[in-house]
Amino acid sequence: MAAHLSPLNDFFAGRRVLVTGGLGFLGSSLALRLVEFGARVTVIDNLHPLYGGNRFNIADVADKIEVVQDDVRNLEVLKPLIARSDTMFHLAAQVSYIDSLSMPYEDLDLNARATLGILESCRTSNPQMRIVFSSSRMTYGRVEGPLVSESSPTNPLSLYGIHKLTAEKYLLMYYKDFGIPTTVLRLTNPYGPRQQIKHSKYSLVGWFVRQAMNGQTIRIFGDGAQLRDYVYADDITDAMLRCAATPAAVGEVINVGSGQSTMFRDMVSAVIKCVGRGGADFVPWPENYERVETGDIAVDISKLKALTSWQPRYALDEGIRKTFDYYSQHATHYV
Amino acid sequence: MAAHLSPLNDFFAGRRVLVTGGLGFLGSSLALRLVEFGARVTVIDNLHPLYGGNRFNIADVADKIEVVQDDVRNLEVLKPLIARSDTMFHLAAQVSYIDSLSMPYEDLDLNARATLGILESCRTSNPQMRIVFSSSRMTYGRVEGPLVSESSPTNPLSLYGIHKLTAEKYLLMYYKDFGIPTTVLRLTNPYGPRQQIKHSKYSLVGWFVRQAMNGQTIRIFGDGAQLRDYVYADDITDAMLRCAATPAAVGEVINVGSGQSTMFRDMVSAVIKCVGRGGADFVPWPENYERVETGDIAVDISKLKALTSWQPRYALDEGIRKTFDYYSQHATHYV
Repeated sequence: MAAHLSPLNDFFAGRRVLVTGGLGFLGSSLALRLVEFGARVTVIDNLHPLYGGNRFNIADVADKIEVVQDDVRNLEVLKPLIARSDTMFHLAAQVSYIDSLSMPYEDLDLNARATLGILESCRTSNPQMRIVFSSSRMTYGRVEGPLVSESSPTNPLSLYGIHKLTAEKYLLMYYKDFGIPTTVLRLTNPYGPRQQIKHSKYSLVGWFVRQAMNGQTIRIFGDGAQLRDYVYADDITDAMLRCAATPAAVGEVINVGSGQSTMFRDMVSAVIKCVGRGGADFVPWPENYERVETGDIAVDISKLKALTSWQPRYALDEGIRKTFDYYSQHATHYV
Repeated sequence: MAAHLSPLNDFFAGRRVLVTGGLGFLGSSLALRLVEFGARVTVIDNLHPLYGGNRFNIADVADKIEVVQDDVRNLEVLKPLIARSDTMFHLAAQVSYIDSLSMPYEDLDLNARATLGILESCRTSNPQMRIVFSSSRMTYGRVEGPLVSESSPTNPLSLYGIHKLTAEKYLLMYYKDFGIPTTVLRLTNPYGPRQQIKHSKYSLVGWFVRQAMNGQTIRIFGDGAQLRDYVYADDITDAMLRCAATPAAVGEVINVGSGQSTMFRDMVSAVIKCVGRGGADFVPWPENYERVETGDIAVDISKLKALTSWQPRYALDEGIRKTFDYYSQHATHYV
């Protein structure tokens, strides 16, 4: 591991890094890595009860991270943080594509308008800041070809997907028009330790681990044959860190996934097998889920590999095992 | 003319039609046609002083059009209008791509959020309503290929272009998810009678007609060789009306242009020749214009023709002549 980490270590040592949504699943995972590298880390998180912000996520290194509990829409608080930072990972978001249909304006506000505010703040106070943004496979919508590449059509089926796409366009435009060095990452289905497991509105792997641990029956919508690309947290944070350190990634949209497609029901089987408890049951699709169902998805990750020499390191079985280990030790902090 | 109008006449006679931005350039042009067809027309327009809303635009038939002077963001007013309408032409917008960079939140609010409000109102109170939306070639951004078709990449260079694209995605999503019958039209460079000629922030043909009428010197940025597709108002309204009456246009994005590309400087020459006064001068690009310059554009209009049997009827010379005639008679109402 040391071999591939050392260039990142050199890049981030002493660097002032701001992570929005930094108490959440991926934000905290990034913050922990950045602390290892000797970066000076500030996280901003509103700890919205519906989403994944959780102070326990960074408990081990809480004294090494500056935590600002506030909303990224509060530019009075955010702007000075932006002005003094070298790099920003922008992960704060409304993260449920299902909820986006019942709270359309909230989703617009958090996923699009807040990103516009961040970029306007950069433009006026720190246009050199390097920004890496976590977007989503949901920008593609229903998939038409066998393999989704970054140039595939973007026809989102949810407001969540539309607003993530809007935020992407902001980031690319502020690079083209104002030179702010931005990178857009489109994540597939992230899972791993530190993800919220309070409810099933997003991030099902963790939720299913919880259900299996409780000996419950996991519900699979339809026949569960839909293909998904499940990607482990450490692989994602590695990709994000590498992109931030790669000048050739500036102004680019880049897929981040495992490169492996797995049937939904096989993911469920892997969870049950790993945990050693629980069961599965097939139920019809609820209407509000089926409407936004994207169909099978297989993601082309060759661009990420070519630009950053990144490779996924965790097979699904191994990632689920590590996730289960984590919640076995720390479940009380997540339920 | 009667031959191609009669099916539209049959379609719109007695129909309840709502036009947002209906006192503006294209909105009023549509409203006048709809009155001819015997439609029951309501327009809503906030008469924002920066944009093109002008009561004189409909003065000839003011007694046949219901005018609601309000903002489309005011859903208390808009929702009952939506509930009782069969068809909506949604044209209300912040229309300057230059201004969108200095008023980012206003542009987001007017061009994206207001459209979301309209669609949410339709979803809850009138999901059968037919909606035709005026989007823009600005959604494409800098052009990469020789001919821009509806499947060309969309990389907007301005917030105006981004928010028009966001609105497009809303319209397509509300069709796919909720069945609301929507059509997105991407207009090139519209010109003609009834367009604002108060300032030069958008719609330059009319502004140049005014300058030439005053014997002034028209400034051409750069060498003026950039290609544009100038499309005359009557051709646009004809396309909009046909799309509304064409079931096969539902759920589609469709370019609307003349299909002819003209060098910017040749358009200026045509204006000067037609008006018989004024001159031209070449000046460097201002920074805030060059940044968002899209490069040469030639637009594929085959989809519109195939779906609706529409044909452009006005060559640039003829359109400019009719525009000049209009402002010769009515300039006092526009300056």
